[in-house]
Amino acid sequence: MTDKMGEFDLIRRYFAPLSKGEKGAFNLTDDAAVLGAPSGEKIVVTTDSLIEGIHFFNDDPADLVAAKLLAVNLSDLASMAATPAYYTLSLALPIKWEESKRNNWLEKFSNGLSEYQKKFKVTLVGGDTVAISGPLVLTITAFGLVRENAALRRNGAAIGDTIWVTGTIGDSALGLLALQNQLDEIDADSSVFLVDRYRRPQPRIAIGQRLHGNASAAIDVSDGLAADLAHMCRASGVGAEIDIAKIPISAAARTLTTASPELIEIAITGGDDYELLFTTDPGSSPAIESIEKVTHCTITEIGRIIEDPAIRFLDDNGENLALSNAGYNHFNIVYH
Amino acid sequence: MTDKMGEFDLIRRYFAPLSKGEKGAFNLTDDAAVLGAPSGEKIVVTTDSLIEGIHFFNDDPADLVAAKLLAVNLSDLASMAATPAYYTLSLALPIKWEESKRNNWLEKFSNGLSEYQKKFKVTLVGGDTVAISGPLVLTITAFGLVRENAALRRNGAAIGDTIWVTGTIGDSALGLLALQNQLDEIDADSSVFLVDRYRRPQPRIAIGQRLHGNASAAIDVSDGLAADLAHMCRASGVGAEIDIAKIPISAAARTLTTASPELIEIAITGGDDYELLFTTDPGSSPAIESIEKVTHCTITEIGRIIEDPAIRFLDDNGENLALSNAGYNHFNIVYH
Repeated sequence: MTDKMGEFDLIRRYFAPLSKGEKGAFNLTDDAAVLGAPSGEKIVVTTDSLIEGIHFFNDDPADLVAAKLLAVNLSDLASMAATPAYYTLSLALPIKWEESKRNNWLEKFSNGLSEYQKKFKVTLVGGDTVAISGPLVLTITAFGLVRENAALRRNGAAIGDTIWVTGTIGDSALGLLALQNQLDEIDADSSVFLVDRYRRPQPRIAIGQRLHGNASAAIDVSDGLAADLAHMCRASGVGAEIDIAKIPISAAARTLTTASPELIEIAITGGDDYELLFTTDPGSSPAIESIEKVTHCTITEIGRIIEDPAIRFLDDNGENLALSNAGYNHFNIVYH
Repeated sequence: MTDKMGEFDLIRRYFAPLSKGEKGAFNLTDDAAVLGAPSGEKIVVTTDSLIEGIHFFNDDPADLVAAKLLAVNLSDLASMAATPAYYTLSLALPIKWEESKRNNWLEKFSNGLSEYQKKFKVTLVGGDTVAISGPLVLTITAFGLVRENAALRRNGAAIGDTIWVTGTIGDSALGLLALQNQLDEIDADSSVFLVDRYRRPQPRIAIGQRLHGNASAAIDVSDGLAADLAHMCRASGVGAEIDIAKIPISAAARTLTTASPELIEIAITGGDDYELLFTTDPGSSPAIESIEKVTHCTITEIGRIIEDPAIRFLDDNGENLALSNAGYNHFNIVYH
């Protein structure tokens, strides 16, 4: 290691070790990676960026930023029923960073990637590292594999289908509020739980892989339950009715929404859940239950697909909750 | 179109039309693209970012920024002998941009992509558009296809091999100086030619595709002839001798280097040529000549691989030119 590490030294030190699982990554020393594409499999490709000051705070721990960056991309693969295989990473590092700060950050960041790589069996195969007169910018392009004709789409929801969601909804949006000290009444344990849900999303890969043959449509919940349900319904040319009381809420979130009922709207419209939202025909409960058992993750029926192209969130009296926030939009809402 | 276009409107308007060539891009409306991988073919993947203020000027025409962004990625595919197929695009757009400025920029930028897409037969299949409190950041991840075992690597150069380079070297670095008004003596035509070479690189796809079976190693010249030759030699465990007089120089560059001989060093070390540098066994001239004829691009023999792991640039007297600049490094050199 030299005093002034250049791009190639940074790659060698922090990123080449993450490519060891794939021979075709050439230890990140060539112009491009050469990857296998098994016969009968399709390649599923997605890309997502995180920007300092927009998607994460400048003092967020680098390993957790890495976890989130990889997770948001893998969540898109999960929603297509794909098995994660590879990813490339583009880093724009602030010019103003001192070398020691940069190296500390890269050390933690690469450790965070390493942990999530192992957990989700995915390997770094390429990247680019550049300088920027501005905030940190992180981009991952992730590749998964799926058997021919087994990819799930957003556009298959049919009238009468049952609507399901994995895990719990709203933890991440409430965790962000907790991080910003906007939840006065929250207890320490709840805060830790919700912040962890915000910072360390768990892409539902194992569930996604099992939805082929069961689900008629699927999407991951990144912009918020309300917005992503709207995306799925628009693509399918249908509408949806959701029973608010059925939306799965964690114990920590339940304490908050019981004390402040208006927080339920935050849960429904807040982003960053990275759960899967999907539809099945009405007779699929036994199949979904068996997926629940194998994957150790709750999957909850929350409503049904209707013909009227509207999205309704119904309270216990069957009244439609009017939502004031239609979902995260980077060009209208900036939190930092 | 609404007054306040959100991410989805931007995608629909400017980028979905660029995905028409590939059904599996789903018109950019799903979570990910699902792409075919023909049996017997490998997938070649590369990624490169361009940052405003580092890699391009903030007043550079958006269509030319698009051309460069796509070209630098396709050049990596060319150096692996791959045929370009798909790409994803991540955009971080400055928050401070007025809507009209943003839309004008995106209109020109997408037109520039469209032109290069057609020229190099590659299709947009996915992307991400986010806001940034800072400069414009553009990232492309490009995918090519190559027959099994036909990808070219950097590490195959053998002692005695002939070293070749496509096109002409140094135009781009001199074009950048012309743009910065650092070349007093330059005539208008030369300036236009050199600036165009800087702004509109022509990835040598057609040559790359024909190098399998002929070349022992290949790399694209992005960091400068000296630096990329060093990369190739290091990967191959060899050295190289280059005859400076044989390095192909355009007429415009020749006028400048004749008047100011010190500019030859800029030509040799400046980046952004996006030509191919490759090695063959010494008897391959007829094969290379026939590739020249088919592709209508000059390919020039410039030196030979030696055992001594050093890079020598020899003048007419066989003296080694000492280079003061070892090639572009984003963390040491920032031009804007």
